[in-house]
Amino acid sequence: MNKEIPYKIYLEESELPKQWYNVRADMKNKPAPLLNPKTLKPSTLEELSQVFCEELAKQELDDTTPYIDIPQEILDFYKMYRPAPLVRAYCLEKALDTPAKIYYKFEGNNTSGSHKLNSAIAQAYYAKKQGLKGVTTETGAGQWGTALSMACAYLDLDCNVYMVKVSYEQKPFRREVMRTYGANVTPSPSMTTEVGRKINEQFPGTNGSLGCAISEAVEAAQAKEGYRYVLGSVLNQVLLHQTVIGLEAQAACKKYDIKPDIIIGCAGGGSNLGGLISPFMGEKLRGEADYRFIAVEPSSCPSLTRGVYAYDYCDTGAVCPLSKMYTLGSTFMPSSSHAGGLRYHGMSSVLSQLYDDGLMEATSVEQTSVFAAATQFARVEGILPAPESSHAIKVAIDEAMKCKETGEEKTILFGLTGTGYFDMYAYQKFNDGVMGDYIPTDDEINESLARMPKLD
Amino acid sequence: MNKEIPYKIYLEESELPKQWYNVRADMKNKPAPLLNPKTLKPSTLEELSQVFCEELAKQELDDTTPYIDIPQEILDFYKMYRPAPLVRAYCLEKALDTPAKIYYKFEGNNTSGSHKLNSAIAQAYYAKKQGLKGVTTETGAGQWGTALSMACAYLDLDCNVYMVKVSYEQKPFRREVMRTYGANVTPSPSMTTEVGRKINEQFPGTNGSLGCAISEAVEAAQAKEGYRYVLGSVLNQVLLHQTVIGLEAQAACKKYDIKPDIIIGCAGGGSNLGGLISPFMGEKLRGEADYRFIAVEPSSCPSLTRGVYAYDYCDTGAVCPLSKMYTLGSTFMPSSSHAGGLRYHGMSSVLSQLYDDGLMEATSVEQTSVFAAATQFARVEGILPAPESSHAIKVAIDEAMKCKETGEEKTILFGLTGTGYFDMYAYQKFNDGVMGDYIPTDDEINESLARMPKLD
Repeated sequence: MNKEIPYKIYLEESELPKQWYNVRADMKNKPAPLLNPKTLKPSTLEELSQVFCEELAKQELDDTTPYIDIPQEILDFYKMYRPAPLVRAYCLEKALDTPAKIYYKFEGNNTSGSHKLNSAIAQAYYAKKQGLKGVTTETGAGQWGTALSMACAYLDLDCNVYMVKVSYEQKPFRREVMRTYGANVTPSPSMTTEVGRKINEQFPGTNGSLGCAISEAVEAAQAKEGYRYVLGSVLNQVLLHQTVIGLEAQAACKKYDIKPDIIIGCAGGGSNLGGLISPFMGEKLRGEADYRFIAVEPSSCPSLTRGVYAYDYCDTGAVCPLSKMYTLGSTFMPSSSHAGGLRYHGMSSVLSQLYDDGLMEATSVEQTSVFAAATQFARVEGILPAPESSHAIKVAIDEAMKCKETGEEKTILFGLTGTGYFDMYAYQKFNDGVMGDYIPTDDEINESLARMPKLD
Repeated sequence: MNKEIPYKIYLEESELPKQWYNVRADMKNKPAPLLNPKTLKPSTLEELSQVFCEELAKQELDDTTPYIDIPQEILDFYKMYRPAPLVRAYCLEKALDTPAKIYYKFEGNNTSGSHKLNSAIAQAYYAKKQGLKGVTTETGAGQWGTALSMACAYLDLDCNVYMVKVSYEQKPFRREVMRTYGANVTPSPSMTTEVGRKINEQFPGTNGSLGCAISEAVEAAQAKEGYRYVLGSVLNQVLLHQTVIGLEAQAACKKYDIKPDIIIGCAGGGSNLGGLISPFMGEKLRGEADYRFIAVEPSSCPSLTRGVYAYDYCDTGAVCPLSKMYTLGSTFMPSSSHAGGLRYHGMSSVLSQLYDDGLMEATSVEQTSVFAAATQFARVEGILPAPESSHAIKVAIDEAMKCKETGEEKTILFGLTGTGYFDMYAYQKFNDGVMGDYIPTDDEINESLARMPKLD
């Protein structure tokens, strides 16, 4: 009954998803609500609409509607770079000499270089539809800022990006891509916001952090008429938009009768992992199928594997709603020797709940092993992977090697979120043999956790 | 009868070309033969086989066989990143408000970031098949070196790249991609070859040039048992491999009843332009159809538009065969303020002959206008184009704007050879408004032409 499986599976236009899938609708234990940082009560639609576009605030709160229509304008934009292929890693399998079948869903074939564009265009679209002038955001490694710049250029929206200072300085080319797409890029902490000035005063010469850039972007949005804040990960709305990844993968698997045993994704804030696994998790929640899901995080920022499940601040300035999530504490800073993204202190509340319910596993890997896997993958599969994506590659290879030992012919699916063209400085360190690993001590994590808000 | 034309046309696997097309077979005036630099007589198969793999030397000399089978192993590799889409530039058309229909063949969806991979895998394959240990080559901007590194990693061949020193230093990330794919990258001129040592002695502190790096790579190949030299452009064999671009484009046009009036490509050594236009030129040569072909070169290196048609050296050290081509003289050096590639002093002998016969037009454009076109294109079409490719974008936009004036609904097809992720330094100069234009004076060109070999 097995149709011959092509090297790369591209769905036909008629087979593409027309709706996003909201996994919360099928979850028995819903993710905990966001809390207003002032009242510590669940954030209302009205409150969230001060920060986010109204339609996005609705999506953020909706945990009952299983399918949400993708507006035609977004479907049209998706055509510019979607469908993303589901690729059978024949060459990697051969190199590993494993009986496992390995597939990856490749999201890097667009200028932003990652899956981030899936949500950037959705958030920009709703902002445009609401008649806004522009949006503000933060970016760390730069993939999200690039994606948002592209979406805003396409829709003629003003785009203001607060870029973590160390990235702004070390990744000038990322910054230039954003500028080429017409965005204003400001190194964070800056002197253009109150919270930025305060942090600069408190920590002179600071390199900045994602949590701080978020606070600045939120303040900047609220200071200007016709602006809202947008975010590239962590939020329910972002996971919703990213389900286009999983829905395409699921449709491709169904079409060719592929049944993944294990589904693997890298996890920072959770946007890619949540998007990839949601539709499959839905099958598991409804009792239709079973899968092993593995979240892979860097050992230098291990929120699922070493954090606590509790309400925490999403940003340094504590201007955003609080979220119940696996967290290392909002003041946790991963070592500057950590090369890739995946540096956020917390995890999506949806994924946190699924993990807490035992529906998903998590593991952490060290960066030198990640770059070794990335290099091995690049040489046989042709694609130069982003460091973030390579966390999933590492664990996919590990699982395939286990199959080699046991002789099992498992089917492994992983998310290849993007390309590493702007990460060559890190590759150079690896090539030169001067890349190190960094694992925070228990004391470091405990100190950060001790600074978390006490809500009870 | 017009089928609805998708945004992006991807051919089915069964529709992909299985043979390359050799346009020389249909040319009445064949391109002039290569000359042995010592005897000044046409290079024989035996002589060429000292420099190139034997099968490639055969392809270099074959001007009668119209179709040459693509070996299955190369077809398998092509599956990793081909077919390349033929894209209807709906968004660009709308932004220009032109009645013209604009299509582009996009070759950037692979890690090497350009069309160069089409010939890299072919040349690496024949080297492997001949039982060689490895290959040597030169690279300027780095696209060719990256492509060859990828192909060699895939086939487990040793890969030695002489990279023009100024690029080696200014584009460290290109260098790291090659190293990640396992290549040895040496800045040229180096002290590892006789010709390199001589040039370093003669011009202390030189930044290097493509012509010099070619000489070093040829010498390095001949010094080691089991090595041959490979080249990314200019040669007949390279144009042959690159016809996969034009054949796919032609098949996609036929399938959807698209009839291009104008076909445009950027031209450095001619690999992309030759590959794109060859199959369409074949129709023209056989009297089956008519097309306007436009070669676009940088005004800073205008071999077709301001050079002479004569035998010239292909490299600085004069170790390669001589080629009859449009040339600015092998000692011509484009200004260092010229940002992109397309810096070679001569042009493919096939394209030179077609141009001389009036079958193809040529024009030159200044780099600030090229980057302006690139930015306009990026913002509406999503893809960040390579500076080289953007020469074609510039002229495609110009032709579309002419249609706007006249009201003609012409169909324009251009080659989008690659992406600009490693060219952000040049984009930054453009974004900062500090990029200049540089047009060589008549005196500069005449001085270089005066240094050319006198053969009669």
